[in-house]
Amino acid sequence: MSKYVIGVDVGGTNIKLGLVNPSQKVIARTNLITKSFIRDPRDLIRAIADQIVEIIDNNGLSRKDIRGVGIGLPGLIDTPRGMVRLLPNIPGWRNVPLKVDLEKKLKIRVFLENDANLIALGEWKHGAGRGVENMVCMTLGTGVGSGLILNNQLYRGPGFAAGELGHMPLNEHGPVCGCGGFGCFERYVGNTQLLAQAIRIMNKKTITLEEMRRLAEGRNAKALKFWKEAAIHMGNGLIGIVNLLNPQRIVIGGGVSNNFEFLFPTIKEVIRKRAMPTQASMVKIVRGELGNDAGILGAQVLVNEEK
Amino acid sequence: MSKYVIGVDVGGTNIKLGLVNPSQKVIARTNLITKSFIRDPRDLIRAIADQIVEIIDNNGLSRKDIRGVGIGLPGLIDTPRGMVRLLPNIPGWRNVPLKVDLEKKLKIRVFLENDANLIALGEWKHGAGRGVENMVCMTLGTGVGSGLILNNQLYRGPGFAAGELGHMPLNEHGPVCGCGGFGCFERYVGNTQLLAQAIRIMNKKTITLEEMRRLAEGRNAKALKFWKEAAIHMGNGLIGIVNLLNPQRIVIGGGVSNNFEFLFPTIKEVIRKRAMPTQASMVKIVRGELGNDAGILGAQVLVNEEK
Repeated sequence: MSKYVIGVDVGGTNIKLGLVNPSQKVIARTNLITKSFIRDPRDLIRAIADQIVEIIDNNGLSRKDIRGVGIGLPGLIDTPRGMVRLLPNIPGWRNVPLKVDLEKKLKIRVFLENDANLIALGEWKHGAGRGVENMVCMTLGTGVGSGLILNNQLYRGPGFAAGELGHMPLNEHGPVCGCGGFGCFERYVGNTQLLAQAIRIMNKKTITLEEMRRLAEGRNAKALKFWKEAAIHMGNGLIGIVNLLNPQRIVIGGGVSNNFEFLFPTIKEVIRKRAMPTQASMVKIVRGELGNDAGILGAQVLVNEEK
Repeated sequence: MSKYVIGVDVGGTNIKLGLVNPSQKVIARTNLITKSFIRDPRDLIRAIADQIVEIIDNNGLSRKDIRGVGIGLPGLIDTPRGMVRLLPNIPGWRNVPLKVDLEKKLKIRVFLENDANLIALGEWKHGAGRGVENMVCMTLGTGVGSGLILNNQLYRGPGFAAGELGHMPLNEHGPVCGCGGFGCFERYVGNTQLLAQAIRIMNKKTITLEEMRRLAEGRNAKALKFWKEAAIHMGNGLIGIVNLLNPQRIVIGGGVSNNFEFLFPTIKEVIRKRAMPTQASMVKIVRGELGNDAGILGAQVLVNEEK
């Protein structure tokens, strides 16, 4: 019986690979730098295949021990057909039959999924969403992504484009967003925007979110105000999805969520005050539990749920 | 075989009853005035039961010919348990076991559902949503309600509170809403707000939406501007749900949708310009086809889908 799964998490910067054992532990990891392979999708496919073979060999396993490979990618993924429709931030990826290409090379079954969906699957089955039937898994990073678990299943949308929580408008006349919209949630709480706001508030040339965190830990008033304002936007941005979908849980992950002690109390307060009473009383706002392994463990869920 | 269904659509003003034949035609209708029965839920239950018996008798049928009664109510409805949890606009309705009470009186099976969900079921199976697996059915009236069909099923939410499209915020600092939120979609396009805006634009003491429609038909510039501004808000209010849920169709019903020729072109333009490309290119915005019968025909769907 093949019981190990290999998870691959393709990001704009890094490609993380992980070997998941039958007890759902990530027992080995490797990394690739995405930009080394972006001239041609075939280079990236070859590099991923090589890494997979290596991770199998290095761990004393053979292909027969691997139930499948699950791959998360940042874009529009046609999971049933195993096609990468579009990766907005990695040039050249449009309608790439990645599943078939990799299966030919590897002789192992391969399954594809959108990266935010894979994180949602991971947190749902192995992390902060265990046991719930309806949840939103929001990832705070450069972008604001989300995966939706509705009626006990992942909701992908008919065009595999659902879950764009970061592009729900917060203000009709808000700032223009790269997506073509105005006042998108991401334009207030994406990393770029948070850093710009931190620079403005601290009146500095550059600053990092880690510095803003340390300043807040030292009770710096401006830094505390910065996190509070970010949390108010986050709360406001979640009201729409709380009222619309009535989720039991909102799992918040991604790098920015490490500042949870400065964010979560305000996010919860905003939702309690401004969302509708039934929805507000039911929803629990929690941190993601799986950290950087969420996508890899989500790959395990994806592979094991496929027939 | 019992093949007829009785649909009951409980509104804040009227209660509409309809007899649906096996070919999904509403062949008889009656009406009750809601406020005559609101002192005590038992009065309303008795009145509905009496009307149901009457509509059966008047049409030469017997209880055996009726497969079931489907009832739509404006509030939080626990469909599996047949409980009315709360009707915000009809006093005294909190945790009423309406299903059991009516079944005792009628000896006919009774099923309850939120009214916006019932309209969505009706349009999905018999109206403007036929054949799609993912749709939003928005009803424009005093309030802005919606029912969500996701992955080929009605999405109720774990607290039966999903679908509150009217309470997705359009502006973080917008006007206070009765729900406790700020800048809710409904605060821009609900009937009360539209009328207030019409009075402002036309600089009159009172005006009706019918007059605004006639003025627009006569190419009155202010009236055309009024509808255009309303449509821009409607389009902006739909962008979030289009980006989040990637629906194939948005069905728009309710009284205000009768002004579709002044609203729909702008709604479609706003979504085409401001929603994300994949989602915008997939979604069709259409008028509801069932008009006032949508809830009654939705009741037929509800009853026939129950085991």
